[in-house]
Amino acid sequence: MDRVVIALGGNALLAKGSRGTAKEQLEEAKVAVLYLEKIIRDNQVVITHGNGPQVGNLLIQQHATTEVPEMPLDVLDAMTQGQIGYFIASAISLTGLHSATMVTRVVVDPEDPAFREPTKPVGPFYEKKPPTTDSGTHYSMDAGRGYRLVVPSPEPVKIREHDAIDALLERGFVVVAVGGGGIPIKESGEGLEAVIDKDRAASLLAHQIDADMLVFVTSVNSAYLNFGKKGQKRIACMTSAEARKYMEAGHFAEGSMKPKIESAIRFLDSGGKRAIVCSISNCEKALAGKAGTAIVPGPALLKMKAISKEKKTFTAEAQAVRATR
Amino acid sequence: MDRVVIALGGNALLAKGSRGTAKEQLEEAKVAVLYLEKIIRDNQVVITHGNGPQVGNLLIQQHATTEVPEMPLDVLDAMTQGQIGYFIASAISLTGLHSATMVTRVVVDPEDPAFREPTKPVGPFYEKKPPTTDSGTHYSMDAGRGYRLVVPSPEPVKIREHDAIDALLERGFVVVAVGGGGIPIKESGEGLEAVIDKDRAASLLAHQIDADMLVFVTSVNSAYLNFGKKGQKRIACMTSAEARKYMEAGHFAEGSMKPKIESAIRFLDSGGKRAIVCSISNCEKALAGKAGTAIVPGPALLKMKAISKEKKTFTAEAQAVRATR
Repeated sequence: MDRVVIALGGNALLAKGSRGTAKEQLEEAKVAVLYLEKIIRDNQVVITHGNGPQVGNLLIQQHATTEVPEMPLDVLDAMTQGQIGYFIASAISLTGLHSATMVTRVVVDPEDPAFREPTKPVGPFYEKKPPTTDSGTHYSMDAGRGYRLVVPSPEPVKIREHDAIDALLERGFVVVAVGGGGIPIKESGEGLEAVIDKDRAASLLAHQIDADMLVFVTSVNSAYLNFGKKGQKRIACMTSAEARKYMEAGHFAEGSMKPKIESAIRFLDSGGKRAIVCSISNCEKALAGKAGTAIVPGPALLKMKAISKEKKTFTAEAQAVRATR
Repeated sequence: MDRVVIALGGNALLAKGSRGTAKEQLEEAKVAVLYLEKIIRDNQVVITHGNGPQVGNLLIQQHATTEVPEMPLDVLDAMTQGQIGYFIASAISLTGLHSATMVTRVVVDPEDPAFREPTKPVGPFYEKKPPTTDSGTHYSMDAGRGYRLVVPSPEPVKIREHDAIDALLERGFVVVAVGGGGIPIKESGEGLEAVIDKDRAASLLAHQIDADMLVFVTSVNSAYLNFGKKGQKRIACMTSAEARKYMEAGHFAEGSMKPKIESAIRFLDSGGKRAIVCSISNCEKALAGKAGTAIVPGPALLKMKAISKEKKTFTAEAQAVRATR
């Protein structure tokens, strides 16, 4: 039995074209859990998830009236953790397993440079530029499609509820936590108007609860070299050093595959055994090593091969290092 | 160290006249937790809370636009558990204690007669009667103040996450759970458009996690006989049989004190040791037996006295029964 963190991408819970009604979201959650059922039964599993479209919908609703007060982003995060966590919990109930959905906060550094330079666009598009919000965040043009709220995306420093998540896993619960990257707070507990990258938050969680595996479930079945270009090649397995090399060479798209690979590398660098990128339908196969992309700790295999021609001992040593990580 | 369920009434978290901004709610939560700090330190504590005004605000927001889909009541419950739970967790963080906020579902019987006769008004008042909702719930005139959504208020049958709450308490976490009476679901996990009485849900939780004490924090400092009338008398302590007698005689107001006393009696009947009614500011004193109203298991003391004149042994027997409960 391994301890596994499964990070569900937004599209695993909200199909393209879906408006995000409760019924649609619940159905998507049921499909996702159905695909994950065997993994959930056989391992200690935490499920994390995105919340972009759901936060966007809440922003639209609260902009539609001045009758009741608007909530800042940290509170909207908390609300969508409740909403989406409930859908996933409902889906898990159908398997007969016991789940626990945790409202999860993530400590960030208020001095993080991200707060000086907000970069993360969230929520709906506006034709006209709305005024800067009370908390000082502002709207920017997003790729010519309209004005969007742009917020800081600071580094996650500590999953505040990691100890509670650990306790629940040990007692056999399937845990749903760190939704939407977690609620950004200062060490003191004070909320911050920001959005934490959910892949980074999942990676930090996996590290903090000493998980064996970190699984990124996304819309493609694997990571690719030259994705969508001539010479496209599926990556079945790579070491963290190879992954870093490919990433630096620009093989993984910003905002989609790159943050996953980057977060996978961090997890492996901090002691994780295996990271996986796969789609929801091939997740079970991917954990069995028969689909998706596996990333394992270690130096670049290609380089090792080259070296091994001269120095057999080095390879043996490198393998020993990998085995003990 | 006792295991204590503290049920915070709506007004303990949202002051009268407050619009319910994030800042206001957080401040109220901080004040509440400050009053509860010693109790939380010295005991295993679960905090439950109401969500009426928060659900009302979400209903107003989602009625204000058709751009994004409305969520049914069970999902709004989940969202407010996230929202309010986060505020309480933030307040607990200031004490240095570790908290865990659980999204909590409560199983109800879909054949509960409440579903045939919705009685619980929720959310905003409308001048004109809005159409019946998709899920069949409808609007009724509420005491001449306007039309309000009226939903079923079924009996809570089982706190679905009671085992996770128990596990977290054992590991030393302050648990925030069963907000707004919990998310009403069928045994299968399917959500229902209903609102569970939060006092009843707190009582059931206290029973299911084998709590020693159940504390209702409300806007008055105690339960009273002839409240607000001639002959008003504070009740310092009463047995469950006395409480039942007073309740049947109409001493406790419907919709405010009565559900608390009723829920307290249920808890004691099912094995609880002590139920308390108090205000947030006298809660610590009330647990020390120096304020508020304590309700303990047992027959009517007045009656016992009368009987004891004839039969001393009966009193001794009754006391023995109380001691072993």
